[in-house]
Amino acid sequence: MDKCRPLRWDGEALVLLDQTKLPGEVAYITCCNHEQVAAAIKEMKVRGAPAIGAAAAYGLVLGAREACQRADFWEALLDVAERLRRTRPTAVNLAWALERMLQKAERASQDPEEALKLLTEEAAAIALEDVEVNRAIGRHGAPLLPEDGGVLTHCNAGALATVDYGTALGVIRAAVEMGKKIRVFACETRPFLQGARLTAYELKADGIPVTLITDNMAGYVMGRGLVQGVVVGADRVAANGDVANKIGTYSLAILAREHGLPFYVAAPLSTVDLATPDGEHITIEERDPTEVSHLAGIRIAPEGVDILNPAFDVTPAKYITGIITEKGVVKPPYDRGLAALFRK
Amino acid sequence: MDKCRPLRWDGEALVLLDQTKLPGEVAYITCCNHEQVAAAIKEMKVRGAPAIGAAAAYGLVLGAREACQRADFWEALLDVAERLRRTRPTAVNLAWALERMLQKAERASQDPEEALKLLTEEAAAIALEDVEVNRAIGRHGAPLLPEDGGVLTHCNAGALATVDYGTALGVIRAAVEMGKKIRVFACETRPFLQGARLTAYELKADGIPVTLITDNMAGYVMGRGLVQGVVVGADRVAANGDVANKIGTYSLAILAREHGLPFYVAAPLSTVDLATPDGEHITIEERDPTEVSHLAGIRIAPEGVDILNPAFDVTPAKYITGIITEKGVVKPPYDRGLAALFRK
Repeated sequence: MDKCRPLRWDGEALVLLDQTKLPGEVAYITCCNHEQVAAAIKEMKVRGAPAIGAAAAYGLVLGAREACQRADFWEALLDVAERLRRTRPTAVNLAWALERMLQKAERASQDPEEALKLLTEEAAAIALEDVEVNRAIGRHGAPLLPEDGGVLTHCNAGALATVDYGTALGVIRAAVEMGKKIRVFACETRPFLQGARLTAYELKADGIPVTLITDNMAGYVMGRGLVQGVVVGADRVAANGDVANKIGTYSLAILAREHGLPFYVAAPLSTVDLATPDGEHITIEERDPTEVSHLAGIRIAPEGVDILNPAFDVTPAKYITGIITEKGVVKPPYDRGLAALFRK
Repeated sequence: MDKCRPLRWDGEALVLLDQTKLPGEVAYITCCNHEQVAAAIKEMKVRGAPAIGAAAAYGLVLGAREACQRADFWEALLDVAERLRRTRPTAVNLAWALERMLQKAERASQDPEEALKLLTEEAAAIALEDVEVNRAIGRHGAPLLPEDGGVLTHCNAGALATVDYGTALGVIRAAVEMGKKIRVFACETRPFLQGARLTAYELKADGIPVTLITDNMAGYVMGRGLVQGVVVGADRVAANGDVANKIGTYSLAILAREHGLPFYVAAPLSTVDLATPDGEHITIEERDPTEVSHLAGIRIAPEGVDILNPAFDVTPAKYITGIITEKGVVKPPYDRGLAALFRK
């Protein structure tokens, strides 16, 4: 499983598995300062909402170490947090992790060494908790999957998108651990191909049967009865249950509804943002058009053609059968159900 | 427009635009025998139901020329027709064109030279009629498009998929010629990328505004109100109105229905097969998995992963707002409407 762990703190630096190189090459990047972490997040060398949160937490540790030398330690640290936060706008785990880190360190804002110690401990706690949280998501979600059947997933909400185990793939892993016979249908997930490159890779490494399809085959696969449900991750869950996730998720939710299939979202509470009332209020990151026009450096579209490249879309709550969190499965109405989880 | 014409008979040989090289390179292949034509169809150097029909017709001319030297001319010709027919199973225009050619030549089955003359004339007639038919499809379909708005299309049902002008893109061209302001949203159409490589290319060459999207952005584009309808081509229309078309069409039809958008299929009568009662009876071609696992020779999925690669899917008639043919627009119920067209 080691080659599917996206990040590791070695005591001095944050070591990231370069996910842009998978599955062809298992290469690591050692980030010795916060700027390297910010760049790795922006370039999607590390991606997936929970993994970005943990990486940013360690990025802040590196930033704190740099800021220790400065008289304006706390202001410098806030600048680092802001730099990290701006790398990607949609996944709320990033902001959540930075906020949690800053709250922890605030009591030592006048004592850089103490703040650094607290931040290092807190980043480790975030990383450790993420694995526990994913296992809990898996336990709650596994009973929802068929005893013997197909499950469709999109993008990569697996070990590679988290600190380990995964959210959507965590549910699938837990179902397999329960003895269920699951075949995963992985949408390749253009333009960045996280499904082809990452989900197929990590499920294959784990020995879980997986069939790769292009995104436009999802309706065909559902129509042929090859899957009995859909499980995806999330980048942000709004207070009303609207879910921002990788572009294409919205289409899959509509297709699932039309075929009478359950559509589940697996996400930790750190992805739920009660301060975002609904999907309309979620900023959708628009990424570079060359992600669409080129593949592995090769141009596949004519020069100068207009291109859209929203990295995410919003699936309205009405299409979602349930949201699987570490504290249980929330069913509609989501506004009450999600708020209640935070009081548990 | 020349660089968007997929085929040309030069009196001796069939010259094909190699569509696998577009948009990077405008290269031509000269086919001097039927085997070269069969290979070009199978390898999708020429593709699109009507273009395949016309190419196969000329393939049969080349085959007849080869067979002229043989005592068993007619049997040899039938073998050539069977070889060409087997290249691709789903698009019915291929079988339609070959059948029409053989019927024409049958009266001269004992006179190879006369049969060759008749076949050459008939192939030219098929090619010529295809352009007229597409212009008629355009005239009937153009009024259905918005005065000023977006239209989504899938794969390439354009000049490159026909002899010229196109079916779905013919409707769009005719609307633009009427003075309508149309922006086309072209799904890139994995795995073969006909949307990115061909539709974007030919619309750009014609100066029609086009925005390229990945297939999984279709729901997003509809949800944002960027398109007011969908127009696609077809590879086979069954008697009940079920439509086989490029993989992903079925998903788009469901998405259009969910967003209250009209979903039109533009196809000549040569694509309508009354002998196929419904979509269940259409053979769906399964193509090589490397089309999904590789792109431009580069592996994008882990080795050994299972892959589906159906080239087409079937959209049930209930999702189709209208079928635009050269004899007019057919609305439900399609069984009666389609049959009536053949009596016109």
